[in-house]
Amino acid sequence: MTQETPVFLKEYLDLHAADLADRLQRLDIEEARELLRQLPPEKAAAALAEVDRERLAGLLEGFDAHQLSGLLSSLPPEDAADLLQEVSAGTRREVLAELSPESAEGLRALMQYPEDTVGGVMSNRFIALRTDMTVEEALQVLRAQAREEYPEDIAYLYVTDANRRLVGIVSLRDLVFRRPDRRISEIMNADVKFVRAETDREELARLFEHYHYPGLPVVDAEGRLVGVVKASDVLEVVTREATEDMQLMVGLSGEERALSPWFYSVKRRLPWLYINLATAFLAAFVVGLFEDTIARWTALAIFLPVIAGQGGNAGMQTLTVIIRDLALGELAPQDGRRALFKELLVALLNGLAVGIVVGLIGWWWKGSPALGLVAGVAMVLNQLAAAVAGVWIPLGLRAVGLDPALASSILLTTVTDVAGFFFFLGLAWLGLHWSGL
Amino acid sequence: MTQETPVFLKEYLDLHAADLADRLQRLDIEEARELLRQLPPEKAAAALAEVDRERLAGLLEGFDAHQLSGLLSSLPPEDAADLLQEVSAGTRREVLAELSPESAEGLRALMQYPEDTVGGVMSNRFIALRTDMTVEEALQVLRAQAREEYPEDIAYLYVTDANRRLVGIVSLRDLVFRRPDRRISEIMNADVKFVRAETDREELARLFEHYHYPGLPVVDAEGRLVGVVKASDVLEVVTREATEDMQLMVGLSGEERALSPWFYSVKRRLPWLYINLATAFLAAFVVGLFEDTIARWTALAIFLPVIAGQGGNAGMQTLTVIIRDLALGELAPQDGRRALFKELLVALLNGLAVGIVVGLIGWWWKGSPALGLVAGVAMVLNQLAAAVAGVWIPLGLRAVGLDPALASSILLTTVTDVAGFFFFLGLAWLGLHWSGL
Repeated sequence: MTQETPVFLKEYLDLHAADLADRLQRLDIEEARELLRQLPPEKAAAALAEVDRERLAGLLEGFDAHQLSGLLSSLPPEDAADLLQEVSAGTRREVLAELSPESAEGLRALMQYPEDTVGGVMSNRFIALRTDMTVEEALQVLRAQAREEYPEDIAYLYVTDANRRLVGIVSLRDLVFRRPDRRISEIMNADVKFVRAETDREELARLFEHYHYPGLPVVDAEGRLVGVVKASDVLEVVTREATEDMQLMVGLSGEERALSPWFYSVKRRLPWLYINLATAFLAAFVVGLFEDTIARWTALAIFLPVIAGQGGNAGMQTLTVIIRDLALGELAPQDGRRALFKELLVALLNGLAVGIVVGLIGWWWKGSPALGLVAGVAMVLNQLAAAVAGVWIPLGLRAVGLDPALASSILLTTVTDVAGFFFFLGLAWLGLHWSGL
Repeated sequence: MTQETPVFLKEYLDLHAADLADRLQRLDIEEARELLRQLPPEKAAAALAEVDRERLAGLLEGFDAHQLSGLLSSLPPEDAADLLQEVSAGTRREVLAELSPESAEGLRALMQYPEDTVGGVMSNRFIALRTDMTVEEALQVLRAQAREEYPEDIAYLYVTDANRRLVGIVSLRDLVFRRPDRRISEIMNADVKFVRAETDREELARLFEHYHYPGLPVVDAEGRLVGVVKASDVLEVVTREATEDMQLMVGLSGEERALSPWFYSVKRRLPWLYINLATAFLAAFVVGLFEDTIARWTALAIFLPVIAGQGGNAGMQTLTVIIRDLALGELAPQDGRRALFKELLVALLNGLAVGIVVGLIGWWWKGSPALGLVAGVAMVLNQLAAAVAGVWIPLGLRAVGLDPALASSILLTTVTDVAGFFFFLGLAWLGLHWSGL
């Protein structure tokens, strides 16, 4: 290879790391690895920090421990820790051994937190002042750290006691304009909001969504300051959690992308399709129970998709509202009953509005008022079933410790299919029975 | 009323504005208005700024123009502007007349931007430095503004030229530690990222999701600095857009909550249920075309929900991935074809995997290999139709200028029901025809 910059590289050098990461995801894995080797290490590292998990492990395999430690040393610790989680335990040990003891220690501290906790999201780069410092001393600390690679987007500084416990907060602005001989303890705000490192990532998202914090300090179980989370970090969490909720509902992994490899999509979607198949046969079994009824009154088959489809749509409306409110923390546990009553009322009214139309169409199309009556009543009953399922499925999933969205639309349509067919065909059977046909 | 603090008020006074807003949403409208009147104006105003739109107008009706102007004057201008948008044009004029000319001018400037644009999200409280200032002069400007009600979470300052055009950015940290006689033009970073006030809110969300900005300056069409957006503001936008996408898919308004009033839910959901009904009858019409076939082979009716349900589930998987990637800006226009081919391949493989099982069950359950063959082939074909619909529906909606999520699950299940019934019953008709039954 020559020393010249290869032509193909030029177009990549000016890209933002996030855009470079997009290219790394779209190229063949071999081309992507080659591109990474050609890039300056800081560029390569910054781009890797933005690559999706599913691609990341494959890309990192292209590097040995020495090259990896070089890449990681140019990254903020929280990003370096995320990358390190993706390599094998053996490589991880080798990489940590290559790094400076302080860097390795910082990374180990970050990696002890599961990635779905606040600790997995936070940065450990923050400036902690002591209560007994003067404003002048604090500014000296700041000045010294400004030369290191500390983030420049600092608006707040945190104050800790002799045991590193968080006791206050000072804005940089206030610090700059106070008299140099004032003590930090005098100018700090002691009513400081914080979050625990063990807290679930979803709960972190809810906190920021509800209170609009620009950032929050993070403390460990002993109340010691161990990190900070910024709104821009939480924005990523919010995006990921929303994607996860939408995807889990329909039987996706929560992390799939439109251009994920086909074998990934097949492997992750197929199990849910089989589960859906099992539930579909449950519905088919109900239809099967009434095969004689259908044989005597074939027009019933025509209305099956109408009854089931309307129940499914109404149920999805309820389900979606409930799942989203749960994710946003807007539905407290004691609200479940109130939400159920509301949904039942809505289902009754919408069911009547739709049921009457279905009944009239049934009457007019097939000339049978009986068919219209059966279809209309089944429609109302199925809307009520859909409302109950739409509220209970997510609350039930959460009650047993699962994600409220998990496969919820598959479960919901099972209920609305089974209940819809049962109500409709059952009423038709009763009708045939009474009329003595 | 006595001068004492009413007992019921005490529990509210210590609440964060966001929590107070939750209470205002759950109380009767009359109780909520009474509570607002009892609260200190700053508390009441801060809580109102957090109340959902749908409740807000009703709450604001409880105040006259004079009271409103008192409430608004304690709010950040961007929040005050949001509240003012919710009152009648007449009241708005009265309120603006009560405010100081500068406040009124600032609010008018903010209100000129539609709420779904960056201008509708941004704050107009920022500190602009001039290129020809020295560091010392800049710090004096800052010190003067620190006494006013400017936000204290400032990490960056923006630099403008004589025509108020954005030309650079300086971090507060850098400003504090540079020599006092340096010019701002020497220490600023001239490569400043910005966003236009007219830009769509969704695009703003994508920018922050992709590049993780802590904040961005906002410029008007002439490049003049008119505002700033922070990551914590965009976090709200991201949350709202995700809620909207999830809700629009199933025929919800995009803004509904589990505890929204029942009449709101009925009014907003019912039109979509009627549209779903029309599409369901389209599917029923297809079944009706084959009524004779079903009459001769009743077992077909049993498999109808299986074929349609599997197509619906697989299609929802494709649809959800595409809609989410579009929202996140991860699917470029030229990726549509690639995504379609991938989805067709996935559909073929999953369709075969599911179709073989369905075929075997059909054979075993009804003892008819013909039924199994027809069901299995129809399953594969319907999975392919679901893939096409899952990709084309959101891309098509976007192409005609609609939200890619709008009623997309209703459209999708129309395709998978109609196609599924047509393939299945059509193949069965052919089978009966050939076999000469």
